[in-house]
Amino acid sequence: MKNRTVFIGVIGGSEVTPQVAKLAEEVGREIARRGAALVCGGLGGVMEAACKGASEEGGLTVGILPGDSRWAANPYVQIPIVTGIGYTRNVAVVKSSQAVIAIDGSYGTLTEIGHALQSGIPVIGLGTWALSIDGKPDSKIIITRNPQEAVDKAFSKIENQE
Amino acid sequence: MKNRTVFIGVIGGSEVTPQVAKLAEEVGREIARRGAALVCGGLGGVMEAACKGASEEGGLTVGILPGDSRWAANPYVQIPIVTGIGYTRNVAVVKSSQAVIAIDGSYGTLTEIGHALQSGIPVIGLGTWALSIDGKPDSKIIITRNPQEAVDKAFSKIENQE
Amino acid sequence: MKNRTVFIGVIGGSEVTPQVAKLAEEVGREIARRGAALVCGGLGGVMEAACKGASEEGGLTVGILPGDSRWAANPYVQIPIVTGIGYTRNVAVVKSSQAVIAIDGSYGTLTEIGHALQSGIPVIGLGTWALSIDGKPDSKIIITRNPQEAVDKAFSKIENQE
Amino acid sequence: MKNRTVFIGVIGGSEVTPQVAKLAEEVGREIARRGAALVCGGLGGVMEAACKGASEEGGLTVGILPGDSRWAANPYVQIPIVTGIGYTRNVAVVKSSQAVIAIDGSYGTLTEIGHALQSGIPVIGLGTWALSIDGKPDSKIIITRNPQEAVDKAFSKIENQE
Repeated sequence: MKNRTVFIGVIGGSEVTPQVAKLAEEVGREIARRGAALVCGGLGGVMEAACKGASEEGGLTVGILPGDSRWAANPYVQIPIVTGIGYTRNVAVVKSSQAVIAIDGSYGTLTEIGHALQSGIPVIGLGTWALSIDGKPDSKIIITRNPQEAVDKAFSKIENQE
Repeated sequence: MKNRTVFIGVIGGSEVTPQVAKLAEEVGREIARRGAALVCGGLGGVMEAACKGASEEGGLTVGILPGDSRWAANPYVQIPIVTGIGYTRNVAVVKSSQAVIAIDGSYGTLTEIGHALQSGIPVIGLGTWALSIDGKPDSKIIITRNPQEAVDKAFSKIENQE
Repeated sequence: MKNRTVFIGVIGGSEVTPQVAKLAEEVGREIARRGAALVCGGLGGVMEAACKGASEEGGLTVGILPGDSRWAANPYVQIPIVTGIGYTRNVAVVKSSQAVIAIDGSYGTLTEIGHALQSGIPVIGLGTWALSIDGKPDSKIIITRNPQEAVDKAFSKIENQE
Repeated sequence: MKNRTVFIGVIGGSEVTPQVAKLAEEVGREIARRGAALVCGGLGGVMEAACKGASEEGGLTVGILPGDSRWAANPYVQIPIVTGIGYTRNVAVVKSSQAVIAIDGSYGTLTEIGHALQSGIPVIGLGTWALSIDGKPDSKIIITRNPQEAVDKAFSKIENQE
């Protein structure tokens, strides 16, 4: 008997516009409605909005925190993981997720996208970074247009892996 | 509204005698019976026995794993956290716990005891390491004789902190 | 009396074409000629070529390794730092550098660019990733056309910080 | 051609008595006189005293720092490594050393002793922690009585490993 709960990461900046927060909240709701657990960095902005959405649908929320205190977690985090390793914890956010949905984007989000692509974890983008090298666009980030499509793609990528 | 679930860590070696496994399982049961979540390193030995006990009582189990794969978790881990940072993850096991119960002891357990005492997190011992320096014993590890006493002490220490 | 040696990071993939290796070697040479120490991830590809160049000019080379063994370092690393934390060590490569020169680019390099920009450490690009969000290019990576210009820019950015 | 410099770690608390600082300084001197590089956590107390001794004998000193700033290093650190991972950096101090000399002892030192013993890195003690379990002393820490004996033992252990 192995744990069959699906864990989906939501990554994005800690300071966001109301429109981006609304997207993140809807992504959180959709993840919870489909029975997956939500993993994030546990702080504000995209992380808090996504946890709020998931919580309100009765979903499970995990926040992997950079600092030394569980009380730094946003109020919708049910499982606070206290790493004490600073923003290096971004790697654990990504590796604890079977797919990540990147919303908008700070430089921290960029590190998470890089760690996910390096580890072969699918990255679904919703208004996030686009990458190119030598003028050639990198096509590994799966671009989507709305929360439902983003969560759909995350699930279909995870199923294909198994 | 802040998360009020109590998180208690159980630390100990990944290879243990049946007697030690029995102690760990009973510690896990007792943690779950009292409504706390169990945090551990997610692997075998003390970790697996404690998760088994907690699961059987309907408790929540978190396993903070050293490697890159969620599938390395023991079958009783409900929330696998994949850190990718090797045994350095011991720090996150400790910091994610409001008190830790150390059972028996490998050198890994010793690092966890050190990190907990350095961070001011109470350490409850059940047949674990004793420390002294210059012939003077260190009295910070709270010695207990059985699983019930160990979990009792963990709860009373956590209440006193708040 | 504080240490006044300048530390410059060179980041890039572990598998590279001969042309990219040549660029990296010349960057290493130029760093050493100007009396700075070179910091890198300690492995092959861009890292090895840069260390080779720096060593041949009598420069100091530091390799911050992902694994558990100093013997994994390329033969031109003089100071092997053994972290045991996997690719999470990318953060330490960046933070130990006062500016980083990104050559070519793997996804690991992308994580290092993100960590540097997040920490306010100047990133000098030499044929590396370009970033955009919502169609707007991010202008934080300083684009250069050859090794001399790249090292020049690194030094001028570091001087401006102090 | 592989790097043949020997790297010896010196671990101990950041606040020490003058007597302990004197011991640490003499350990640093002895390491440098024998041509080895000194690795430490880069801060004050035992770390600073050991770096001072090594520097005065013309030795090389590496400081693996917990925070985000190179300027936190003590003035005798020549190679500051900036990890940004907090006290989790203790693991890197140990793994970057071929043997560690533990002087006196804080709880941080205890974590380093644990990580070293877990990784099979020899631990030489000079007035440091003694460990026992179930009343049986653990004999893995090699007890010495003075700086010369401590450095002697470190070298002989390293030679035996190779």
